[in-house]
Amino acid sequence: MRPIDNTPLARNGKVLILAYDHGLEHGPVDFEAVPESADPEHVFEVAKHPAVTSLAVQKGIAEAYYPSYEDDVNLLAKLNGTSNLWMGEPDSSVNWSVEYAKEVGADAVGFTLYGGSNNEIEMTEEFREIQEQAREHDLPVVMWAYPRGQGLKNDKKTETIAYAARQALELGADVAKVKYPGSSEAMGEVAKMAGKTKVIMSGGSKRSDEQFLQEVKAAIDAGGKGLAVGRNVFQREHPERILDALEQIIFEEASVDTALAAAES
Amino acid sequence: MRPIDNTPLARNGKVLILAYDHGLEHGPVDFEAVPESADPEHVFEVAKHPAVTSLAVQKGIAEAYYPSYEDDVNLLAKLNGTSNLWMGEPDSSVNWSVEYAKEVGADAVGFTLYGGSNNEIEMTEEFREIQEQAREHDLPVVMWAYPRGQGLKNDKKTETIAYAARQALELGADVAKVKYPGSSEAMGEVAKMAGKTKVIMSGGSKRSDEQFLQEVKAAIDAGGKGLAVGRNVFQREHPERILDALEQIIFEEASVDTALAAAES
Amino acid sequence: MRPIDNTPLARNGKVLILAYDHGLEHGPVDFEAVPESADPEHVFEVAKHPAVTSLAVQKGIAEAYYPSYEDDVNLLAKLNGTSNLWMGEPDSSVNWSVEYAKEVGADAVGFTLYGGSNNEIEMTEEFREIQEQAREHDLPVVMWAYPRGQGLKNDKKTETIAYAARQALELGADVAKVKYPGSSEAMGEVAKMAGKTKVIMSGGSKRSDEQFLQEVKAAIDAGGKGLAVGRNVFQREHPERILDALEQIIFEEASVDTALAAAES
Amino acid sequence: MRPIDNTPLARNGKVLILAYDHGLEHGPVDFEAVPESADPEHVFEVAKHPAVTSLAVQKGIAEAYYPSYEDDVNLLAKLNGTSNLWMGEPDSSVNWSVEYAKEVGADAVGFTLYGGSNNEIEMTEEFREIQEQAREHDLPVVMWAYPRGQGLKNDKKTETIAYAARQALELGADVAKVKYPGSSEAMGEVAKMAGKTKVIMSGGSKRSDEQFLQEVKAAIDAGGKGLAVGRNVFQREHPERILDALEQIIFEEASVDTALAAAES
Amino acid sequence: MRPIDNTPLARNGKVLILAYDHGLEHGPVDFEAVPESADPEHVFEVAKHPAVTSLAVQKGIAEAYYPSYEDDVNLLAKLNGTSNLWMGEPDSSVNWSVEYAKEVGADAVGFTLYGGSNNEIEMTEEFREIQEQAREHDLPVVMWAYPRGQGLKNDKKTETIAYAARQALELGADVAKVKYPGSSEAMGEVAKMAGKTKVIMSGGSKRSDEQFLQEVKAAIDAGGKGLAVGRNVFQREHPERILDALEQIIFEEASVDTALAAAES
Repeated sequence: MRPIDNTPLARNGKVLILAYDHGLEHGPVDFEAVPESADPEHVFEVAKHPAVTSLAVQKGIAEAYYPSYEDDVNLLAKLNGTSNLWMGEPDSSVNWSVEYAKEVGADAVGFTLYGGSNNEIEMTEEFREIQEQAREHDLPVVMWAYPRGQGLKNDKKTETIAYAARQALELGADVAKVKYPGSSEAMGEVAKMAGKTKVIMSGGSKRSDEQFLQEVKAAIDAGGKGLAVGRNVFQREHPERILDALEQIIFEEASVDTALAAAES
Repeated sequence: MRPIDNTPLARNGKVLILAYDHGLEHGPVDFEAVPESADPEHVFEVAKHPAVTSLAVQKGIAEAYYPSYEDDVNLLAKLNGTSNLWMGEPDSSVNWSVEYAKEVGADAVGFTLYGGSNNEIEMTEEFREIQEQAREHDLPVVMWAYPRGQGLKNDKKTETIAYAARQALELGADVAKVKYPGSSEAMGEVAKMAGKTKVIMSGGSKRSDEQFLQEVKAAIDAGGKGLAVGRNVFQREHPERILDALEQIIFEEASVDTALAAAES
Repeated sequence: MRPIDNTPLARNGKVLILAYDHGLEHGPVDFEAVPESADPEHVFEVAKHPAVTSLAVQKGIAEAYYPSYEDDVNLLAKLNGTSNLWMGEPDSSVNWSVEYAKEVGADAVGFTLYGGSNNEIEMTEEFREIQEQAREHDLPVVMWAYPRGQGLKNDKKTETIAYAARQALELGADVAKVKYPGSSEAMGEVAKMAGKTKVIMSGGSKRSDEQFLQEVKAAIDAGGKGLAVGRNVFQREHPERILDALEQIIFEEASVDTALAAAES
Repeated sequence: MRPIDNTPLARNGKVLILAYDHGLEHGPVDFEAVPESADPEHVFEVAKHPAVTSLAVQKGIAEAYYPSYEDDVNLLAKLNGTSNLWMGEPDSSVNWSVEYAKEVGADAVGFTLYGGSNNEIEMTEEFREIQEQAREHDLPVVMWAYPRGQGLKNDKKTETIAYAARQALELGADVAKVKYPGSSEAMGEVAKMAGKTKVIMSGGSKRSDEQFLQEVKAAIDAGGKGLAVGRNVFQREHPERILDALEQIIFEEASVDTALAAAES
Repeated sequence: MRPIDNTPLARNGKVLILAYDHGLEHGPVDFEAVPESADPEHVFEVAKHPAVTSLAVQKGIAEAYYPSYEDDVNLLAKLNGTSNLWMGEPDSSVNWSVEYAKEVGADAVGFTLYGGSNNEIEMTEEFREIQEQAREHDLPVVMWAYPRGQGLKNDKKTETIAYAARQALELGADVAKVKYPGSSEAMGEVAKMAGKTKVIMSGGSKRSDEQFLQEVKAAIDAGGKGLAVGRNVFQREHPERILDALEQIIFEEASVDTALAAAES
């Protein structure tokens, strides 16, 4: 972990990543609710919102669309990822080298680690190489810290999520993206285990504005340093509204009511 | 994905690849109908047809025959491929390095990805290296996007083909070669998921002129950007006639009737 | 093995490593007894104690916290390690390159070898590379020599621990960290097999002051050259006290009674 | 495939390889009939015969004996090979690098590919590297094209041998060594599938002079470009006689009777 | 194979290797009979005997003890080796790079090959790299040629040992260390198959002076070029006596009686 507060990834010490690798990870099904969300241009436009500190995409999307947005959007190069056409013990292929990510204009890199998978050893060693190459290029490193696999009966237990956050700190991630552990108290435990590594909450599947904002608020209050969100933004008809609300909660430390008002104004 | 309209691979934004790697992939059986098709010279002569924007072959064929055709034919170096002497979970060996393909005169490179195979992770990582090396040499990248393997019950479903096309976009292919999903509407879905990556239809096994041209026409009308065809050309007695017809449909946006007339003239 | 008496790792030919990689290896559970021990700063402060000749941590902890302590603490870069989210045949991923460890300020490197594991061959070859790179950078090499795996029925037998110590000598470790074999006589056997490689005792799980110090004393008397300790320090309310006592026993060759008195003063 | 007629491997466009890697592939048993054949010097002397365009040996044999013969014998470096002490799915280890083969004085390189083996993918990728390195050093490439393995019920069918010959062409071999498919007609099919790649017949186990020469004659008449022979030469008491006969058939296009007469003169 | 008669490894064309890697391969149990044999210094002192043309040890032993003996002992760097804590299909990890062996002062390198093991392919490829790197550094190469593994019912048959010796020649070893095949006649067969590669007999487990010397004598008479011996030297109370005797038999071609007399003088 190295400090990232002076990098484009952070704003006032907080992070809001708009994640858009669902086309690879989940396939077309994630775009059914809002068909225009299948079009990367639509999502790059959304990412211009000042609340978004970076947009996370795979290499091909970045190559094709980022040249038109490099002045307005910070690029988080998601380096690994896998389709769910394949179903085996959790694993993820490295689809993008750090060097080429830099060349395409990346401001930070992202990597998924499935702690607890039978592929944990191999994935952790891939992370080592990527993390050290990112250091050479002064790129912040975000870990999608997702325990998953044969040995794990329950990946939503607080202690499992806290372990994942600790793993992110020990292995050298600057930011750890984790599942919300269900309560502010649990989130506090998780954040504490991560030490100086910033813990951010993963948006997950779509929920109502209020429920979603309450969880984000609870996470921030407990020491969370932000959010990585995909479906809860681009599966909404008016993504800018929820971003207005998130901006209030994450960067202005506003209440949920204030945020909801912002979303409706 | 990077724009390829100014490369030899495209003509008016469309692509017609003559594929000739059947000797490796299927063996001598594919040459039985038209025995002279076993002779690469025969197929290189066919590839001189102005409708063909590139000829896709394996390394050995290119080394032996391309020197006599480099002024008349654009070379698409098919970098991986496997015999069907071997039968296991879908996989494909990398038979040609990008650097040597460039040396032999390649104008573009091609790579098969079996999404859904237990070898998907490894194949995707091989694709990463090849795609990034191709960028260094300014060579367009075509993905044979063919979901196949243990986890796939049906590789002809529209959603599976659309997922493959999306995978091509996300991983950085400039062109995605996919199976025809059976209808113009389905092809539209597939093309939409590929964003700026051009989707082209795979010719498949031999069919009547009319049936084949109708499918190509439907694919083009739905947003397809061309065709990769092998057996439907070289398993015909008069390959130039079907190429005349395809030229009408793909590059002139003519009707099937006009195309059939061109084939018979 | 190369002499290390003139390196920061040793003091009067003895070694006291404060090990703090439990967050990765065991997870948050190891910090429950003394919650502040989850905070690396707390442990770095403890490591300033003059009895500690180095602090062993993983890469991410070193990156985040060592810059504030490099004048006061010697850094032992623990290069491999694995979470116990995953449960399979013993293995450990390499999380840190020697070169980058040097860059972060490491004074020595550490590596776990699970002799007897089905992964022994692979781990030993990883050790080869790391050991030889450490030689290039003049960094002492410590092996966590822990027989463990399918073929081992009992990893606490003297002959197994002695074998592990010999393996450390033969493979080129400068220091071998082994489990305490239960008696001074057994420890003498172990030390003898290690030749010029210094054998140090592993602290293990927390015990009473007296029991723990008696074992350390017996190990030192039998030819042990020190201790690597984690939980027996940071799971105590007053870690500096036990370090005062250990300093007496290890570096001053004092009796257990003298050491206990030092701990209480 | 690149033209080899101007290389030492060919004489008048034909090839006669004396193969002598039986000590590795089969072991001492192959030398029982003619005990002096176990001595490489004996076989190097035989290889001086003008009919022999190259001698194929493993690295150790070349290092030890070739320095005395480099003026009189062309060296074909057989790069892979495996003992039959081991019995598993067909595979072959790479025992010699192209670079070092060049240093030892190789005029060409040879590689066995077991198409149809579960190791086909890996072997084909090893072939890629070797073939491309051979190009850098201007060394002709000979493939021992031997379908074998779990998926193959019958490796002597014409279509299987023809597939192997095609594989050699597609992957970039200059010469394909195949099993004799049993008739001149079948050999014609095989040769046709190989295009510009020269197909040569493998000598196989020892047979009578007449039977052996008739098969070689039939192979040459059908378009075969020569022979790779071991046991049918060195398991004979007077190897020079059969070489006299082979010279007639292969390079002089003589009849079997003329050749038999030459052998007896 | 390259000539080694002018290297430190040979004396009058013969070789006597004192092997001392038992601490890694067998563990402390091999030192029980003569406890001081656990101390490498003891064995280095023994190795000063003029009959010993080199001492074979692993990297760590060489690093620690060889600096005091480099004027008096020739170093054979045993590059691979494995503990028997682990029990699986025979394999051996590479523990020492050729380059670093050279730096430590090696005069030759040694490598174990388990022909017939399911790991034969991988081990043979490791041998390729090491053998070629040794050529660059002008270091003789000794192969411990030990058929062993799933496919081998009997590794003491003459034909198996002869096959192993041939494998050593074909793969490029300068010296092949093999098990004694039980008779002078059998040893003659083995030596013949190795061609110019020197075959030396492996000492094996401890036997009486007379029995051991008779076997060595028979091996030398049959064309053996020396001995690699460990336990039959260091498990004796007076190792210099047996070395006096071996010197007579190996370098002076004396009778067993003369040798026994030398041992007792």
